[in-house]
Amino acid sequence: MRKLNLSQVSQYLDKEVELFGWIDVRRDHGKLIFLDLRDRSGKVQLVVAPSDKETHAIASGLRPEWVIKITGIVASRPEGMVNLKEGMSGKIEVKVSKIEVLSEAKTPPFALDSDGREIDEEIRLKYRYLDLRRARLQKNLILRSEFLKHIRDFLYNKDFLEIETPMLTKSTPEGSRDFVVPSRLHSGKFYALPQSPQQYKQLLMVAGFERYFQIARAMRDEDTRADRGLEHTQIDLEMSFVEQKDVMSLVEEMVIFASEKIGQKIMQKPFPIFTYDEAMEKFKADKFDLRADKDSKELAFAWVVDFPVFSAEGGSASGGEKALTYSHNPFTAPKADHVENLLLGKNLELLTSLQYDLVCNGHEVGGGGIRINKPEVLEKVFEILGHSKEEIREKFGHMLDAFEYGAPPHGGIALGLDRLIMMFQGEEALREVVAFPLTGDGRDPMMDSPSTLTKKQLEELHIKVEEK
Amino acid sequence: MRKLNLSQVSQYLDKEVELFGWIDVRRDHGKLIFLDLRDRSGKVQLVVAPSDKETHAIASGLRPEWVIKITGIVASRPEGMVNLKEGMSGKIEVKVSKIEVLSEAKTPPFALDSDGREIDEEIRLKYRYLDLRRARLQKNLILRSEFLKHIRDFLYNKDFLEIETPMLTKSTPEGSRDFVVPSRLHSGKFYALPQSPQQYKQLLMVAGFERYFQIARAMRDEDTRADRGLEHTQIDLEMSFVEQKDVMSLVEEMVIFASEKIGQKIMQKPFPIFTYDEAMEKFKADKFDLRADKDSKELAFAWVVDFPVFSAEGGSASGGEKALTYSHNPFTAPKADHVENLLLGKNLELLTSLQYDLVCNGHEVGGGGIRINKPEVLEKVFEILGHSKEEIREKFGHMLDAFEYGAPPHGGIALGLDRLIMMFQGEEALREVVAFPLTGDGRDPMMDSPSTLTKKQLEELHIKVEEK
Repeated sequence: MRKLNLSQVSQYLDKEVELFGWIDVRRDHGKLIFLDLRDRSGKVQLVVAPSDKETHAIASGLRPEWVIKITGIVASRPEGMVNLKEGMSGKIEVKVSKIEVLSEAKTPPFALDSDGREIDEEIRLKYRYLDLRRARLQKNLILRSEFLKHIRDFLYNKDFLEIETPMLTKSTPEGSRDFVVPSRLHSGKFYALPQSPQQYKQLLMVAGFERYFQIARAMRDEDTRADRGLEHTQIDLEMSFVEQKDVMSLVEEMVIFASEKIGQKIMQKPFPIFTYDEAMEKFKADKFDLRADKDSKELAFAWVVDFPVFSAEGGSASGGEKALTYSHNPFTAPKADHVENLLLGKNLELLTSLQYDLVCNGHEVGGGGIRINKPEVLEKVFEILGHSKEEIREKFGHMLDAFEYGAPPHGGIALGLDRLIMMFQGEEALREVVAFPLTGDGRDPMMDSPSTLTKKQLEELHIKVEEK
Repeated sequence: MRKLNLSQVSQYLDKEVELFGWIDVRRDHGKLIFLDLRDRSGKVQLVVAPSDKETHAIASGLRPEWVIKITGIVASRPEGMVNLKEGMSGKIEVKVSKIEVLSEAKTPPFALDSDGREIDEEIRLKYRYLDLRRARLQKNLILRSEFLKHIRDFLYNKDFLEIETPMLTKSTPEGSRDFVVPSRLHSGKFYALPQSPQQYKQLLMVAGFERYFQIARAMRDEDTRADRGLEHTQIDLEMSFVEQKDVMSLVEEMVIFASEKIGQKIMQKPFPIFTYDEAMEKFKADKFDLRADKDSKELAFAWVVDFPVFSAEGGSASGGEKALTYSHNPFTAPKADHVENLLLGKNLELLTSLQYDLVCNGHEVGGGGIRINKPEVLEKVFEILGHSKEEIREKFGHMLDAFEYGAPPHGGIALGLDRLIMMFQGEEALREVVAFPLTGDGRDPMMDSPSTLTKKQLEELHIKVEEK
């Protein structure tokens, strides 16, 4: 028999029901004992009368967070006793005839009925299985699951295939710092965890899949911030035979569809589009908040386009005084009429790319572009970035090769899921929207990781820990 | 404008269309040039007449795997020229007026119109972006995506939440060998990649989520086989307030629903159930093939239940001559009326567990159980397995703690996705159903991983490579 959700109990007026859940609150009025029973869906008030001595005795011993199963009759609450608190089935109560204790509970180390923000991160994460019981976190994770469902429904409906790309991949010194995994079978060698499925999704376009998506895990060994952890999830997609406007319009439709399905309000549709120059002039930044009232719960999405291909700042290029770096992603194509100058190495600072960023309420929530699909163009970009031919061959030879075998025009985007959910829920930190986050310095106080390895493990992996 | 799928072109009879795709075959009949154009959805025959000299000249230069865009009129094929080959829109052809070459292609290093099994693994994986163009692999990955869509639809419909669990987790010497990730911030310490989300999903039940699922990536550093890679994907779910029969019936309903949605035929419904003893007596194994004809394309699912909790073989227990190991998973509960003997340490070899395995066509495709939710029972199991109190506290203290705070009865299962897809498609190797697999010895010949790290990377991670 399927467990009845407590939010549905009011549909069983005057019927006998079996209910399961956690004791949220117990109020002992001497004779009558009132219990608020809680599950994922909501709460119901239970009433235990003194007439049934055995059940009344059990009820007297119950404490918050105990898990119970009860049998009882659903009744209307007496006039004047209707409770309109959020989540409570306030018009009914259940007159209990039988109680079974399924699991007792010690007193939790912190209150579960507060919003939890006042509690120390360390202790919240150590007892994360209790912290996650609070209504706010339950709601955030439920909403996250629902949002992803709508994203997937939308993309399947548009003929996208979900294709998984590997977790054990190759370390490249481009981009952020890799997490690496020592190989047991290949002494002295390492895999890297993916920073994004960028190259794989482009290779899937070369392979002819045309429309790919993945809710992909990405990991970077960089210092964390409230809104950036060591791992994050991205809504990652790529399409073939498209131009910039095709991807932007599909992504916009998807974001509107899934956000509105979960009750979000979008300030302006279609999303306004700013060129990079306009954004820098108007907002002094390429991410900005269009809301007049920053406390408004609306979502102010906007696109930013026409980014420069190269910028003089940044640290990714090697050697040379006038070293250039890419503004976004070395795989993003320059505008078609700028390709000639790129290949000639002319006016490089003036080249504009087919990059598009999605901005919302002051944050960048996504970045994408039409990609380079010609080997000579990709090679030239890496040359300008200061790499030797040999280096380019070694690091990106497979991409150059792939583009020799019939690479369709293609482009895509990656949206940061964690940040989107934070924005939807008005949260300030990742730990409010991720089930099991690490602390700011990358520890899990619950499982006590990272941890030391045994001598045998280190030997099998052909590594030694450096003495301090 | 949305690209037209080639499988839909026949709906545009006598209309002008713009088409995109790869040249599959070119047949030059001197005057008329025939081109088979291919995309993910199918193929269409293009006809280029000599009258338009410019277009005819372009068509003469086209080669297989070039990417083109064409404009033309959809026409019925002449009587007698209808082509019934699979995937070909055989009743129509397109009379081409304009061709644009989007991307040229070198001759691929191997044939793409064979099924590919005859080609060396190394070369197939080096040019995986070409290997994936073959019809068989396209079909396998499309089916994989569709199957997962139906699995998710089913589970969302049953009120399951999809919740992501971490990739950077804790190394425990239980189970298989972990892949580990050195920590930069915590010198000498390591994360482990998850072998399964087992503990996290149980903690989500303690946290009150009641119905969890995840299409989860799991990694084990164990020697590979044709059907077992270093990473694999599992359909992972867990439910609260359930008994064994509840989980089994939900999983059976899900597997039937999603398999039949993608056109699979199931031999027997409901799935037959064998006890472990029955299976060992009848088949001499706990996985078996019920099909009379092993070449039949049917799926013969069956359940195996009533496994022993402990077995005398295996190598997981430490010390002692009569060391016991768990048959499946140390978190699986004994049957309710066997708990007393467990706690007393009596007749341990005779205890039966609430484990259930799903078997199909001779393979184990899933394993699950009702879990222990009492700290004293879990502690006793680990004691019997030979662990000291201190070890148990250190490794599993968080689970014991969690069970002190109101842990609902719960159970679940993990199904091996890769193996299921192999079975559906009659494939013998993982590389036929995974987009970017590693070689048998854990290398990616395309990206050339694993690879060496720079001195700076090793220093930042506080590790040294052991000299040989």
